[in-house]
Amino acid sequence: MSKGKVLLAYSGGLDTSCILKWLLEEGYEVMAYIADLGQEEDFEAAREKAIQIGASKVFVEDLRKEIVEEVIFPTVQANAIYENVYLLGTSIARPVIARKQIEIAKREGCQFVSHGCTGKGNDQVRFELAYRTLMPTIEVIAPWREPRFYQRFAGRADLLKYAAENGIPVSQTPSKPWSTDENIYHISYEAGILEDPNVTPPKDMWKLIVDPELAPNTPELITITFKEGVPVRVVNEGDKTEVTEPLELFMYLNTVARRNGIGRIDIVENRFIGIKSRGCYETPGGTILRKAHMDLEGLTMDREVRAYRDEHVSLQFGKQLYNGLYFSPECQLVRSIIPLTQTTVNGVVRLKLYKGNVDVLGRYSDTEKLYDMDESSMDVQGGFEPVDSEGFIRIQSIRLKKWGAGLN
Amino acid sequence: MSKGKVLLAYSGGLDTSCILKWLLEEGYEVMAYIADLGQEEDFEAAREKAIQIGASKVFVEDLRKEIVEEVIFPTVQANAIYENVYLLGTSIARPVIARKQIEIAKREGCQFVSHGCTGKGNDQVRFELAYRTLMPTIEVIAPWREPRFYQRFAGRADLLKYAAENGIPVSQTPSKPWSTDENIYHISYEAGILEDPNVTPPKDMWKLIVDPELAPNTPELITITFKEGVPVRVVNEGDKTEVTEPLELFMYLNTVARRNGIGRIDIVENRFIGIKSRGCYETPGGTILRKAHMDLEGLTMDREVRAYRDEHVSLQFGKQLYNGLYFSPECQLVRSIIPLTQTTVNGVVRLKLYKGNVDVLGRYSDTEKLYDMDESSMDVQGGFEPVDSEGFIRIQSIRLKKWGAGLN
Amino acid sequence: MSKGKVLLAYSGGLDTSCILKWLLEEGYEVMAYIADLGQEEDFEAAREKAIQIGASKVFVEDLRKEIVEEVIFPTVQANAIYENVYLLGTSIARPVIARKQIEIAKREGCQFVSHGCTGKGNDQVRFELAYRTLMPTIEVIAPWREPRFYQRFAGRADLLKYAAENGIPVSQTPSKPWSTDENIYHISYEAGILEDPNVTPPKDMWKLIVDPELAPNTPELITITFKEGVPVRVVNEGDKTEVTEPLELFMYLNTVARRNGIGRIDIVENRFIGIKSRGCYETPGGTILRKAHMDLEGLTMDREVRAYRDEHVSLQFGKQLYNGLYFSPECQLVRSIIPLTQTTVNGVVRLKLYKGNVDVLGRYSDTEKLYDMDESSMDVQGGFEPVDSEGFIRIQSIRLKKWGAGLN
Amino acid sequence: MSKGKVLLAYSGGLDTSCILKWLLEEGYEVMAYIADLGQEEDFEAAREKAIQIGASKVFVEDLRKEIVEEVIFPTVQANAIYENVYLLGTSIARPVIARKQIEIAKREGCQFVSHGCTGKGNDQVRFELAYRTLMPTIEVIAPWREPRFYQRFAGRADLLKYAAENGIPVSQTPSKPWSTDENIYHISYEAGILEDPNVTPPKDMWKLIVDPELAPNTPELITITFKEGVPVRVVNEGDKTEVTEPLELFMYLNTVARRNGIGRIDIVENRFIGIKSRGCYETPGGTILRKAHMDLEGLTMDREVRAYRDEHVSLQFGKQLYNGLYFSPECQLVRSIIPLTQTTVNGVVRLKLYKGNVDVLGRYSDTEKLYDMDESSMDVQGGFEPVDSEGFIRIQSIRLKKWGAGLN
Repeated sequence: MSKGKVLLAYSGGLDTSCILKWLLEEGYEVMAYIADLGQEEDFEAAREKAIQIGASKVFVEDLRKEIVEEVIFPTVQANAIYENVYLLGTSIARPVIARKQIEIAKREGCQFVSHGCTGKGNDQVRFELAYRTLMPTIEVIAPWREPRFYQRFAGRADLLKYAAENGIPVSQTPSKPWSTDENIYHISYEAGILEDPNVTPPKDMWKLIVDPELAPNTPELITITFKEGVPVRVVNEGDKTEVTEPLELFMYLNTVARRNGIGRIDIVENRFIGIKSRGCYETPGGTILRKAHMDLEGLTMDREVRAYRDEHVSLQFGKQLYNGLYFSPECQLVRSIIPLTQTTVNGVVRLKLYKGNVDVLGRYSDTEKLYDMDESSMDVQGGFEPVDSEGFIRIQSIRLKKWGAGLN
Repeated sequence: MSKGKVLLAYSGGLDTSCILKWLLEEGYEVMAYIADLGQEEDFEAAREKAIQIGASKVFVEDLRKEIVEEVIFPTVQANAIYENVYLLGTSIARPVIARKQIEIAKREGCQFVSHGCTGKGNDQVRFELAYRTLMPTIEVIAPWREPRFYQRFAGRADLLKYAAENGIPVSQTPSKPWSTDENIYHISYEAGILEDPNVTPPKDMWKLIVDPELAPNTPELITITFKEGVPVRVVNEGDKTEVTEPLELFMYLNTVARRNGIGRIDIVENRFIGIKSRGCYETPGGTILRKAHMDLEGLTMDREVRAYRDEHVSLQFGKQLYNGLYFSPECQLVRSIIPLTQTTVNGVVRLKLYKGNVDVLGRYSDTEKLYDMDESSMDVQGGFEPVDSEGFIRIQSIRLKKWGAGLN
Repeated sequence: MSKGKVLLAYSGGLDTSCILKWLLEEGYEVMAYIADLGQEEDFEAAREKAIQIGASKVFVEDLRKEIVEEVIFPTVQANAIYENVYLLGTSIARPVIARKQIEIAKREGCQFVSHGCTGKGNDQVRFELAYRTLMPTIEVIAPWREPRFYQRFAGRADLLKYAAENGIPVSQTPSKPWSTDENIYHISYEAGILEDPNVTPPKDMWKLIVDPELAPNTPELITITFKEGVPVRVVNEGDKTEVTEPLELFMYLNTVARRNGIGRIDIVENRFIGIKSRGCYETPGGTILRKAHMDLEGLTMDREVRAYRDEHVSLQFGKQLYNGLYFSPECQLVRSIIPLTQTTVNGVVRLKLYKGNVDVLGRYSDTEKLYDMDESSMDVQGGFEPVDSEGFIRIQSIRLKKWGAGLN
Repeated sequence: MSKGKVLLAYSGGLDTSCILKWLLEEGYEVMAYIADLGQEEDFEAAREKAIQIGASKVFVEDLRKEIVEEVIFPTVQANAIYENVYLLGTSIARPVIARKQIEIAKREGCQFVSHGCTGKGNDQVRFELAYRTLMPTIEVIAPWREPRFYQRFAGRADLLKYAAENGIPVSQTPSKPWSTDENIYHISYEAGILEDPNVTPPKDMWKLIVDPELAPNTPELITITFKEGVPVRVVNEGDKTEVTEPLELFMYLNTVARRNGIGRIDIVENRFIGIKSRGCYETPGGTILRKAHMDLEGLTMDREVRAYRDEHVSLQFGKQLYNGLYFSPECQLVRSIIPLTQTTVNGVVRLKLYKGNVDVLGRYSDTEKLYDMDESSMDVQGGFEPVDSEGFIRIQSIRLKKWGAGLN
């Protein structure tokens, strides 16, 4: 008799294939859930493999649009970033994956969900915090934290042996000396030879983005239009390509960024569980969007609204996303705040893309009037009397003079 | 009889030369104070010009070392930035200029200090808040805020006429359609044709940094060593140039950055007085340092110390510098905090410079051990039991499950 | 011919009566605007006095309900406070006064608004920032900052003389050695003998709240019900008085607080213009509400939502209110955030009022379930396995052990 | 053969006595560590009891002075508080207890430390994070998280039975329907009948502080002198008692607060592990100190330094203390910052204590001059020109007028 139904997040790779088989052996009915995040993968092959191994059902779900609209765009609006440098590429996919997994688990009457994350990483936390918020009664099976599992499969050799014994087909591609995680927003490289933070990754590791040294010698000019901080139109000023539908727009930005060498980083970050970790990341379109959005905010956002957002929203949302708290009440709050900060972020940014650089050539807004050329002008005595600055400075000085008097 | 002694911050240019003359006309004794900030300028010519116009004394002060050591390096340690993008290039020079001006004013028994800043900008605020904190009894003469002055000199033509009438020599260089401010850290371009934020600056505006498109096709490799967050050694891995003395080190970074097209930005920012302003900036060495320092922090800083610094120091110090509050009690506090956050930021960062890009190739530290390859490794079951993560996640979930139960 | 129409914020007192007359002398048409904020005052007498002096129109506006619902309740929801101690009693009235003044000024076609605030206080800033945000084209006449006015009226004697000469009736009540400002929320005492911060105010200064030493010897028990952080019902457990309408509810809390000696403070605060100032304040009902609301949040709010609100909303809203920025874009943002934090703050708090003390006797919520007696219980092994705490602590320790290892 | 040496934090109570015996049974050598925190307890009786049960050594350590000087005073300086209401009474003792325990464990060559905390509370976390930071190699035995232990001792009856069987003497005092934790700073009551947050605690629960209703009818006046934010002198203005030595001073404040009914609270708080918990606390002297210190800051601290401390230190230190992170690098940083904020907090506060109230009667400072009566005065036209305020407001309005123009 079955111990119950498990919905396993399945990739088609060696690990989750072995987990699928092992869960069956353990006496569960197993359904496989394959998420199309925009990664390069043969989803149909994965579906068939899952069935062949013994999955009672397989669900392949295209989550790209939700990821772009519900997570990437708010991340852009918030200028969210983790530890100053990481654009949160892995994090952004997790909430959408978990939400769909729980939706299917509920619908199919599963008592368990399972995943192939290790016990040392962030993703176990991200998935499970999401699962439990969305369905507090769900049970989670995390084989890489189960002694019965991880003691049996101590290394890749054990998995390969188990696959061979159980007729699980294994990709003939030789394993790379690092691991990757890919979605529509980014690809990550970590582990293996990258664990020494002083080892420069080999040139052929980078997969999405062309080496800046090999990118075209001629810049490419694009224009991005934002509405309330969300990109709504991209035009290539060279070939006049124009895209407006969110998913298409984002994929187009990926395309132009990739060919111009834009979006690679190599960092050491702090995982939620308190371990430092080295990662290399490629985030092509996201890198352009961040630059363009931030620039337009300069033109269109009130200073203090921007300062509030920078101090009280950007860092917080970045940390929440990184730590897997997307569905938490505090992140729900922050996600409600983000659009309130973006009502004036309307306008157009003109960009030059060239060998890894995203340069702003200019920006304008037809609707927002916080920028005033006359007022700004050093040549025009307009907008206010110079004597007002005198008073402004004198009043600011009251406190400082008192302080200074005590020092002297 | 003299109305008293004025120490005028003097540049040798048209504006401050006319101000010098005008102050004399108004009945003051005027001394000229020329600050060598590392800008391209003939200080001896300026000295002679001041004397010729009628300055009773002239002081030429080399402030470069103080700027680098006392302001730029703390700015790097703090990762300080204004509105996400501006490296504070103009701001960093102001406190040092004002401090020396007050020091001389006290020594020379001046009752007044004067400057040539306009009534619409940040610099008037920066200078005067510094003056008044350091010497609460000092009086400030700001001619561009004095109706007697600015009504008389309504435009450049009036100044030129006044100069001609008073035998003030005027540079034959034709005036550019923008204004600049240069120091060892950066150069700024604003006003004139740049006041339309959608006008792309002409290629020949940029003065310090080579156009990335014209930079060498071969990357340059350098290595920077930090001690407590301060750069102490730069080595060029190509020609083995090595620099360690702070001022020399910083100027060397400027040199390599400039030739590799690194450090240009074009932004719209919010001035302290509440006006939006468009500025283009070149910050060569500072751009490299920021990137390298931030990277090393990933390897060597505790996560929560870094998060504290990011939330409670970086933004604050950036804003204080921008708003001219360097000598304020709150900035004095923040400046005391900065080094406390940097005790572990010791190590080496390896960089590749290429056509506007600063890429990290690797980093290491011989002394800091917060990064642990075994612990970090996805392949090694070391450091802790996987079951611990189970508990970690389960405890984090308690609160979220309660929340989720209320939602469902 | 008239210089234009002025709408003067008029109190009926000596200062604004003289200002009214002076504005007429200066050639303006003057309308008087009298705001009923809940202060003890004969508004009809003030109306007649204004007309007698020469006001072309007089508007008496009851603003109490707006103050309670639009400013006091959000302040309670946000637990807003200034410098840890000041409940913002003067500040909360200002936006509502200014908004109505501008509304009338627009309707009546006034080109000017005027007020009787001094040039050293906060209120001039609060009124004028509000005026200019709500009607950027309005001109402000602030006589106490006009040399023509303040040089003529150097002291109270000059005003009395002017009043006598112009037939302006003056109250026979002898002037007190401090000044007061009263509204439905509070009364303030400052200036005069209070300017020495070590002078204990005389017992008969305090006007609203009974001296705790003279308050009843028997406690009074009340119960407050909150809905989304807003008080919706107060019941006196003694005499069963019950109030639910917002204005009535708030006035009832004032009544019970006043008779039980609740709500007096004596502080030194920092004004917006950088001057320190000593003030004594009575805030009866507001003191009870703050205590009760904060208590209920303990029971009903998620920990991290509360922490977010404490760090990113309470301090900010308090400062914005104090500095007169209620209508600023950043305060508009914060005011939109406040209710988003309060969705779960539903329930009842039981209080004991006794000689200056507000003690919580208990609290409950019929709808919110974040508090769970079994989970909380030290006696019940429910909710989670003790071993989970083990993992939680061990994972938290990873980072700390690394740190500790470096220290030892 | 012994499994090793354990240093057990021992209270003399039923739980830790049974744990001591059980550890012996398990094969460890056990030493007992008794911390004198200022709680009411017969330490010598506890010592003998530990020896009688079988401890190989017993250490009784007086930690009161360290708690007062190293934790309570910095908490006062920082105005630290948890969730607006909790003065951190339990938290403040934990770091000092753990530090001494580790110090002894190292000296005595123990491989293990042990404590009697449950698996649901904060204290397990506080102790263990401290242990592991201070001695990363130490092993912790937490019996209440060990199934072998907690399954055997499911309730108090099992412990009593075990005690009887093993000749462990048990106090004849009947158990109370709540548990308490006491130290020199406070006593806490929780669990048992208090787990229903709407149950009003019985009057006889409160142990330290007299019921305000029963406190003297005559106020008591005291004066506290602070030096850099630390209390250095307390004088009773009635009987002229004067205390200056830190421990004595703090205990004297406890005495006067206790007899005047000062320092009781009843709250629901959020534990670190995410569970809500109801607690009643008595914090007599600490309540007076907080009020007095905060008041003096108004007089003596620069506005922006205070604002910085409120935003970036108080909340953070409160949370770190509550969560047991006293020895963490981030708390070490914050503890270094606290005194930097307090250099000007020098002066005297005069207080009236009466039936639960702490009222400020006045304050002064002989050394700090940030408060300036003339400048503050509404009657004196000193310090600055009124027209300066005009400019101050006009400049602040520039941004707001632009915003307002967009709204209208």
